[in-house]
Amino acid sequence: MPTFSPLKNDTFLRALLRQPTEYTPVWLMRQAGRYLPEYRATRARAGSFLGLAKNPELATEVTLQPLDRYPLDAAILFSDILTVPDAMGLGLSFAEGEGPRFARPLRDEQAVLALREPDLSSLQYVFDAVTQIRTALDGRVPLIGFSGSPWTLACYMVEGGGSDDFRTVKAMLYSRPDLMHHILKTNAAAVAAYLNAQVDAGAQALMIFDTWGGALADGAYQRFSLDYMRAAIRQTKRERDGVPVPLIVFTKGGGLWLEEIAGCGADAVGLDWTVNLGKARERVGQQVALQGNLDPTILFAGPQQIRDEVRAVLQSYGQPGAASGHVFNLGHGISQFTPPEAVTTLVDAVHEFSRALPKQL
Amino acid sequence: MPTFSPLKNDTFLRALLRQPTEYTPVWLMRQAGRYLPEYRATRARAGSFLGLAKNPELATEVTLQPLDRYPLDAAILFSDILTVPDAMGLGLSFAEGEGPRFARPLRDEQAVLALREPDLSSLQYVFDAVTQIRTALDGRVPLIGFSGSPWTLACYMVEGGGSDDFRTVKAMLYSRPDLMHHILKTNAAAVAAYLNAQVDAGAQALMIFDTWGGALADGAYQRFSLDYMRAAIRQTKRERDGVPVPLIVFTKGGGLWLEEIAGCGADAVGLDWTVNLGKARERVGQQVALQGNLDPTILFAGPQQIRDEVRAVLQSYGQPGAASGHVFNLGHGISQFTPPEAVTTLVDAVHEFSRALPKQL
Repeated sequence: MPTFSPLKNDTFLRALLRQPTEYTPVWLMRQAGRYLPEYRATRARAGSFLGLAKNPELATEVTLQPLDRYPLDAAILFSDILTVPDAMGLGLSFAEGEGPRFARPLRDEQAVLALREPDLSSLQYVFDAVTQIRTALDGRVPLIGFSGSPWTLACYMVEGGGSDDFRTVKAMLYSRPDLMHHILKTNAAAVAAYLNAQVDAGAQALMIFDTWGGALADGAYQRFSLDYMRAAIRQTKRERDGVPVPLIVFTKGGGLWLEEIAGCGADAVGLDWTVNLGKARERVGQQVALQGNLDPTILFAGPQQIRDEVRAVLQSYGQPGAASGHVFNLGHGISQFTPPEAVTTLVDAVHEFSRALPKQL
Repeated sequence: MPTFSPLKNDTFLRALLRQPTEYTPVWLMRQAGRYLPEYRATRARAGSFLGLAKNPELATEVTLQPLDRYPLDAAILFSDILTVPDAMGLGLSFAEGEGPRFARPLRDEQAVLALREPDLSSLQYVFDAVTQIRTALDGRVPLIGFSGSPWTLACYMVEGGGSDDFRTVKAMLYSRPDLMHHILKTNAAAVAAYLNAQVDAGAQALMIFDTWGGALADGAYQRFSLDYMRAAIRQTKRERDGVPVPLIVFTKGGGLWLEEIAGCGADAVGLDWTVNLGKARERVGQQVALQGNLDPTILFAGPQQIRDEVRAVLQSYGQPGAASGHVFNLGHGISQFTPPEAVTTLVDAVHEFSRALPKQL
């Protein structure tokens, strides 16, 4: 396994482990992305989104871009959750201006039963990117590796792309639960292997994005999303060279299931903006750290409104020990239309206000 | 005010008022719609969606179509929530195969401050449809009138149509809350006047659709959606000729705010499929009836799966008094791709299984 420079800023990792911190660490989902002109320039050089994601040099470049602009407390691997089903042979492409497409979606029993875990060597470009990014970071901040959740991957694998109502994948779930469980079991093993290889390559924290768990009905969520995240987490390495590698799960729209999510084995739970952080903390106690949860559209308002809303989120997290166990983030990925200067206001406000909050001793 | 035949089946109204019923009443959001071939035939004769919605004879015809197929326990006015902003002069149109569009969205201070409540005479076609439908129903089942919520109407009025992220309307909310409150205050008064005129015309129950309340952050939801529903409800007639006219509110994605929604003055709260009905009942006690909450995609599965999931929803509502205070519905509008025979299975299963549940004495 590669070795790296010592970490200079471990605030993010400490918060995930519910250890005291001097201030509330902050990073943003999709922080390396289209809202940054320097990202768009690299993306243009790469020729395509997949060309960018599959090139470790360029992926390293865009991963570091937001850190050069903003004093963020973590970096996240630039990649896409659909690399895993692509490596399973489903044939991923991104048409310009549209979402992802799979050439060979899982639409019948034969296709489902032929599904196999990916050969990790076909994902070597991801692990190479992790190692290059971690090296380039030179210990500035921790690097987050990630994966889609088994259910969220299954949504794309069965629908063949995005969906408004997930009617194809849910019809399979209700009509042929045996096939859905087969996909999810395969995905859970693939997710664990994929995350473990990222840890080996240098990832210092992990996140599972369950973007579409909130589309499921109560009951179905537990059986078809949460249970398979739990299974993946159980098989995932949680330390490297004796250093803990904390893991975050995020089910968008999953606020009602918070207590159950908090018990799935993760160190931290991501929350969207519909959840009150103080109430969330009451519901889960000290079982997990919480990550979130500013509405990303606030970044379209002026600096004073951004500062007011950042303060409100920090205060809602509650006291005492306000800065401990909270990682500031948006409740969803940053919009491509966000003015970059709004992020400066946001990051500075998180650091400034959280330093003034009472600390846990 | 017009007079009508006596009601033969008041099960739906009794459930909304938390009175004992012999079985759990059922209706479906968008039950008169594109999944029915007879609807598509009438829609083709009308020439356009708005041509259909603005023609009381044709609106009556499509409102009754699902009742002729299925033993539903309520009818709902065939109309669109955007009739109100259309009557405010925003210029509504529906391009074929696309969503609604406003020619004159509220994009600046001048447009917002010029906004006025609609002249109700420009909505006479809606009230004529209510009277004609109630007459045609001849007391078979109660007729539901409805409106969009002040916030949900504002979303379309500011965005100018549908949206993935509501960034224009939310940017106004955060940047210029004064303008947003002006729109919402105007909308709340318009919603109340619109619902009252529907009651005068013959509506026997009312529903407020807060389709996009769940897009708001905690805190913003209470101030910008719930408070204005409460204001509208306060001004809404709740009886006609001494007979109660129960009112349902439905915030899709609002499960986390259930206790607060239950206190807004409505008789019943609609729930989407992410909410467990039994837990919801524990949270609100006997304060309100609950409506919901089957995932509409279950209708793409086979008859046995539909029956199993209907039974699960009924059982989740809990005991004792299982059939009292529960109106069965989907957690969202029925999909246009639903096979009509799946609805037969659903409606029959609700009636059959709920008759076998323990009754409140």
